Amino acid sequence: MEAALEAGCVEEVFARPGADDLLPDLADGVRLTWVDDRALGSLSESVSPGGVVALCRYVDVPLAEALAGARLVAICADVRDPGNAGTVIRCADAAGADAVVLAGSSVDAYNAKTVRASAGSLFHLPVSVERSAEAAVRAAKDAGLTVLAADGAGETRLYDAPAGPTAWLFGNEAWGLPADLADLADHRVAIPIHGRAESLNLSTAAALCLYESARRRGA
Amino acid sequence: MEAALEAGCVEEVFARPGADDLLPDLADGVRLTWVDDRALGSLSESVSPGGVVALCRYVDVPLAEALAGARLVAICADVRDPGNAGTVIRCADAAGADAVVLAGSSVDAYNAKTVRASAGSLFHLPVSVERSAEAAVRAAKDAGLTVLAADGAGETRLYDAPAGPTAWLFGNEAWGLPADLADLADHRVAIPIHGRAESLNLSTAAALCLYESARRRGA
Repeated sequence: MEAALEAGCVEEVFARPGADDLLPDLADGVRLTWVDDRALGSLSESVSPGGVVALCRYVDVPLAEALAGARLVAICADVRDPGNAGTVIRCADAAGADAVVLAGSSVDAYNAKTVRASAGSLFHLPVSVERSAEAAVRAAKDAGLTVLAADGAGETRLYDAPAGPTAWLFGNEAWGLPADLADLADHRVAIPIHGRAESLNLSTAAALCLYESARRRGA
Repeated sequence: MEAALEAGCVEEVFARPGADDLLPDLADGVRLTWVDDRALGSLSESVSPGGVVALCRYVDVPLAEALAGARLVAICADVRDPGNAGTVIRCADAAGADAVVLAGSSVDAYNAKTVRASAGSLFHLPVSVERSAEAAVRAAKDAGLTVLAADGAGETRLYDAPAGPTAWLFGNEAWGLPADLADLADHRVAIPIHGRAESLNLSTAAALCLYESARRRGA
């Protein structure tokens, strides 16, 4: 909630009398409404909600705005698990990315589990929603980004991937990237597997890719 | 199940008549028992089990055996989320680690979610269970490993951490490592945060640490 308040995204806060100690400082213009437990329960998907719920405005931005001047971007194509999407947003933030694009049939950015897994990062960097994954990839290229598809069968090793302004393209947790979408990327990049694991899960793979870009920048 | 069979850990397989196409090749000595849906349901925690369930022997090994000759190890101290523990095992396998130690009050290695998140890696590399996290750290040092505690407030940057035989020490997903345990490590290592995220989640942090060790080995 602190991250949402700092970002100026909170429109109204609902709190239970007695939850004053949980109540953050509210800026001017943020309405505060006292409610009982039952009302609080109906405002939250949580089984045992805390004493405070914030109503936030949507934070996603148009694709062109998210990509303008960006040097590191994560594009999620058909990422369906809300925890994975939120974790990618959190990793992208930590790696210093400029934006995240939830593309194709990816999970809703406002799914409660996505918001929670993002640990505030949903409010830290621009997130864009684009129904066509192809359009997201083309827009990233048009914005001067080299598109690198994370692909276990990729022809380029992670540590040999080109540096410079980069958009990482991540596919669905179960079936990866469709071939035509992977082909649209500038390179298909594989994380080396040293042991006998067949692959990495989506959010750990995304962390390795995004941080490799950050490391290359000498950051 | 394929990973468990390859590792020779399967003692008996229960299958539903008609699930023949799901049935993997069984080595000599693996008993096959045909069961009905109801029996299958009671053998599996899954709400809608597939047609085949395998009974495996325990695979964990004594700590000394796991650490003998190891050059890269992951020690989980009080890691409680089964998905995280399984994902760390999967990442350790992918990074070419020699063993994983589930230490302190870490989740059961045989929790169904841990097994599932490990994606077979539970059967790929030695996993050891040690009730005392301190004992695990001391044993790793005695085995000639430099113990690096993953700690957001650490004094050493990830990319400056010493190379050589390494045991990474990861703490609880919510409260991290207790100070006395972190102090027992040779170095406390922080992953640089470039954006405004406060931290990374446990499994992505573990992936970055383990892969940094793998990268240093020139692997």
